[in-house]
This record gives sequence, C-alpha cells and structure tokens, in this order.
Amino acid sequence: MKRLVNDGFDVVEEMLEGYCKANKNYAELHETDGRVVVSKKMSEESKVRVIIGGGSGHEPLFLGYVGKDFADAAVIGNINTSPSPEHCYNAVKAVDAGKGCLFMYGNYSGDVMNFDMAVEMAEDDGIRVETVRVTDDVYSSKSHLERRGVAGDVFVFKAAAAAAAKGLDLDEVKRAAEKANDNTRSMGVALSSCTHPATGQHIFQMDAGEMEVGMGIHGEPGVRRSKLKPADEVVDEILGYILEDIELKAEEEVSVLVNGLGGLPVMDQYICYRRVAEVLEEKGIKIHQSLVGNYATSMDMVGMSITLIKLDNELKELLDAPCDTPYFKI
Amino acid sequence: MKRLVNDGFDVVEEMLEGYCKANKNYAELHETDGRVVVSKKMSEESKVRVIIGGGSGHEPLFLGYVGKDFADAAVIGNINTSPSPEHCYNAVKAVDAGKGCLFMYGNYSGDVMNFDMAVEMAEDDGIRVETVRVTDDVYSSKSHLERRGVAGDVFVFKAAAAAAAKGLDLDEVKRAAEKANDNTRSMGVALSSCTHPATGQHIFQMDAGEMEVGMGIHGEPGVRRSKLKPADEVVDEILGYILEDIELKAEEEVSVLVNGLGGLPVMDQYICYRRVAEVLEEKGIKIHQSLVGNYATSMDMVGMSITLIKLDNELKELLDAPCDTPYFKI
Repeated sequence: MKRLVNDGFDVVEEMLEGYCKANKNYAELHETDGRVVVSKKMSEESKVRVIIGGGSGHEPLFLGYVGKDFADAAVIGNINTSPSPEHCYNAVKAVDAGKGCLFMYGNYSGDVMNFDMAVEMAEDDGIRVETVRVTDDVYSSKSHLERRGVAGDVFVFKAAAAAAAKGLDLDEVKRAAEKANDNTRSMGVALSSCTHPATGQHIFQMDAGEMEVGMGIHGEPGVRRSKLKPADEVVDEILGYILEDIELKAEEEVSVLVNGLGGLPVMDQYICYRRVAEVLEEKGIKIHQSLVGNYATSMDMVGMSITLIKLDNELKELLDAPCDTPYFKI
Repeated sequence: MKRLVNDGFDVVEEMLEGYCKANKNYAELHETDGRVVVSKKMSEESKVRVIIGGGSGHEPLFLGYVGKDFADAAVIGNINTSPSPEHCYNAVKAVDAGKGCLFMYGNYSGDVMNFDMAVEMAEDDGIRVETVRVTDDVYSSKSHLERRGVAGDVFVFKAAAAAAAKGLDLDEVKRAAEKANDNTRSMGVALSSCTHPATGQHIFQMDAGEMEVGMGIHGEPGVRRSKLKPADEVVDEILGYILEDIELKAEEEVSVLVNGLGGLPVMDQYICYRRVAEVLEEKGIKIHQSLVGNYATSMDMVGMSITLIKLDNELKELLDAPCDTPYFKI
C-alpha cells in the first residue's frame, strides 16, 4: 500500500470535500447530493448544459473539467464504478436551463445503464437529455461505437462544451460531440497496476519490467504482455495501432494528447511526446495543439496513452475556444 | 524499472526536445545551449529578468514555469544535479535587458557553487546578477537560511516574477523574493523512492507500507521512518512541524500548496488538502489561495509536501498577479 488515505471507504467523499474547498471559485457540491459537482461559473444565459461523469479514480477526470464553458456538472461514482441514476438525474435538475442537457461519459456498461435511466427520469419531468458516449480506445472493439472511452473524453467533452457555450441548440451540441468522437482515437500502455484504496491491493498483478499495450484504464486486457521496451518503440507500436484505425493524410491536422495514467513522471511523458511528434512530422501530419499531462488517470497506475483527434475548421474552432476550469484552461 | 525512457543517459535532452515542441508558444531552447530554456513570452520592455534552475527530475519544476510574467529562463541540470556555471551564465546573456537578472533556486551546494560562478562571469561582462536561494524545507536545518529548497520554490519564484513584471528594479525584485522566502515553510513525506532512469534502480530503499516524514526530494533523511499512517495523521504531523516553525495567528492569511511528489494520485492529494484546510480553519487561519497538484516532483516518488506562505497585502498582490506558463496560469 503506497497511498495517503484514511478509511478506504471514505475516499470519494473526502476527495470531493477537499476538491470543492480547494477549487471553491470553480465548483461546489450539490446542496443535497454529495456526488454531484456543480459549476460556479455556469453561463447565466439559458444554454444547453453539459454533464459528464463516471467512476472515481480517474482524476482530474471528471470533476476537474467543471467550470466556465466546459462541463456544467460532473456526476461522481465510487472507484471504477458508475454513479447511480439518481445522481445523474440530480445533476440534470441542478443545471438544466430549459434548453436540455447533454450527458457525456466513457462507454462502460454500468455508466450506460445508469445514465440511460436518468434520461428517462428527466423525460418524465419534461427535460430533454441527449447522450454521447466516448468510444476512443482503439483496441477495445473492432466496431468504433462499441469501444471503451479513455482519455479522448477530454477532446469530445471540450468540443461539445464549446458548442454549448456558443449557444447552439441540443441537436447541434450533440452533433459536435459525435463529430469529435468520430475523429478521436486513443491507445495506452500500462507498466503497473493501480492500488485500490479500500483493499490496499493492486487491482491486478503485473511484474516489474513488464508492460501491456492496449490495457484499459481499469486493467481491461490489452494486446499482449511483454518485456518493457524503450519509449520510442512503445510509442511507435501504440501510434501504429491508432494510425491504422484512422486515416490521416499529409497536411491534415490533429490535436495530440499524451496522457499520463497517474504514476508516470512528467519527464517520461515528454520523452513519449517527442517521439509522437517525430512520427507525425515524418508523415507530414500537422500538430495543431499538444496536451501533455495527467488528464485521465487510473490512480497510481504507471503508464500512458496517446490520443489523436483529426481536425477540420469546425473542430479546431471548438477546441480552441476559451474555457476555464481547474485542470483545463484556454 | 517502471519508466518509459530510451537510453537513460539521454533523458534530459529528449525531455527538453519534447517539452519545447509541445509548448512551443511558451518556450524554446537557447540557440547554442541545449540546457537553457528561454521564454517566448518575455516582456518586450526592458525589465529585470528572472532566471530559475536546478537539477532535472523535479518537473514541472523548473522549465514548466517559463512563460509570461513568471520565469524568463530556466537552466536545466542532469538528474538531481546542478546545471554548470556556463549554462547559468548563458541564460543571463540570453535574457538580460540591461536591468540585471535575479537567480533563484533551491539551496543545494552544487547549485550554490555553480550559480555563484555564473554571477561572477556576468559581473566580468558588466551584467548585475543577484541571487535568492529558496530555503523552505523546515526539517533540513534549524537555521532558516541554511535549509534546502523544495516546493516553496513556486511561491518565491512567483512573488519575484510579479515584482519584475511590475517593472521594479533589481533591488526591489530581490527584496520581494527574500520576503516571500522568509514567509514560506514546507515539509514532506515520502512513501517510496524514485527510479533513476539511467540505472533503472530506486535511488534508496524503502519497503511497501513504510513512510518517512521530512524526507527531502532527493531522498535526504527525514525525521524518522515509520509504518504508514492514515492521511489525516500524516498531515497533522507535517503541518505541526510547519506551524511550530512559523508563527501564525487567527485571522492571518496564507496560501497553501499540497504538492504531489510524482506518484501520488490526485485523489490522495485532495484528501490531504481537506485535512490541511480543516486544521487551518480550526485555528482561524484564513486560506487566501490553494494549489493542489504535482508542482515540484521527484520523478515517480510517491509522497507529498505541504507548503504554507504567510501573506500580507504586498505578497497577496504579487501572488495574485496574472501570469501564463504551461504549468502555472493566473
């Protein structure tokens, strides 16, 4: 156990308390639902509201992206567990301004079930809620829309939030999110498990000196386990899978995210980014925007993922639009 | 070995290449000195220039704070090793605008020796360079000015940079930095070693389930090693040492930094912050500003430090002043 927690069953509540105190200008807990984080910088105009969420243990995803012109609320589950339908529904009631809400989350069965139930609960109240599931993890299924969502969340959420901030209607905001998701691909590598704070144990076993390409952020199996390779070889393999899956021609533009899974040093993140940039430059693909850091983690897991989003003018404008949250500022 | 690197002796160069590519709007490498990172957002006016630096392995310290109205240049050494005098001197030559430069770095003997030699080299060229060493690590010496510098760097650098951005002269910028340093105290706890990228080995040994309060960011010995305790007890002990060392009365104001050392999950950082805020509230001490995150790391070390800076109106104004760098934006 190498974690700094108190009772392992109190981690989510204690984290949320600390988070909302430290970031009190950005976010607060819902008055009666301690699993709903609500923006304190929400537009005063009546606009479509953006609600994101999922299990805990991926911080700063999801709560770190609640603020101005990004997410209006985040719904927080237990470790690696979907929030309940009531929490999702309470988020809708807390932020809806008459223009409807968009739910966005990574495509995991628990989240799908619970957010879908909340859509029905909102419908009964006359509030329209649409859903876009992020499905960027290349290796998790052959069919794009059946894939899991990982760090690509960040680009998809940002695009939709910028569309909502522009005052577009719910259909248009949903279309922007779907378009961003259609153009986003990720793949990761894990060098270690993460430590569950309640058991103090690793959630799966992995020897030092091993790596698993394609592993999911909850430890879902990847392509294969092998001896750890040099960073450039790892990047080449991961990026190879992504570039096989999304057609990118010379002169086309992308945004790049090299995402640390929690325990990977900043130094290593930039060593990996360096190789990503090198490979893309060799292919004549232009990098419009680069993000490097811990954007979607798996607690203390050592590893990283690469995300590319293929851009056109519309997506560029949406990703470049100003926003202000504790973990994402433009 | 759980690191994603290539040749362990190339890590600094490869990191710098990746960093300057990913953050090309903020920083670039010096034309002829690959260990000097220069701001691309430096004021066009002739102002005092702020130069920071030290060994690698503490990212985002130092390079992540180069940008607009924060550091004008960072000088980068090898892992846990001071940059050479030539690098420090090249940074001066690259940014000096006729008003002199301020060197700031953590108080370690190698840094002191090399930056001091660069001061003399600059003097021979008629450029005035002053120095403020950060000495915030409470446990490292009884005498404040003999202590090591750790995460408190961030507050001291920020205060000085804001003074320089206001157009104050070198004596005044130095005074602001010294005042910030006089009022800053830190203490940390380590739950693991870090992994040296060249050897692939931990730089010291620590068993799972152990912790060492007061350990330095290079593994310098702390108060004692003990069994890992719950987060609240760890915070109480660390914060206790800080509050013993700096007098803080009810109604006085502080900025707080809960700093992750690299491998500590975001979740745990906020659980620790929560307790820091609770203890300060109980004492009636007001929190003006809260920073939680990986600001000064030791690669993949699991652990955290707490920093408090006692504020008056001048320090508040300096810390609140706008700035824009990849890892610090106000």
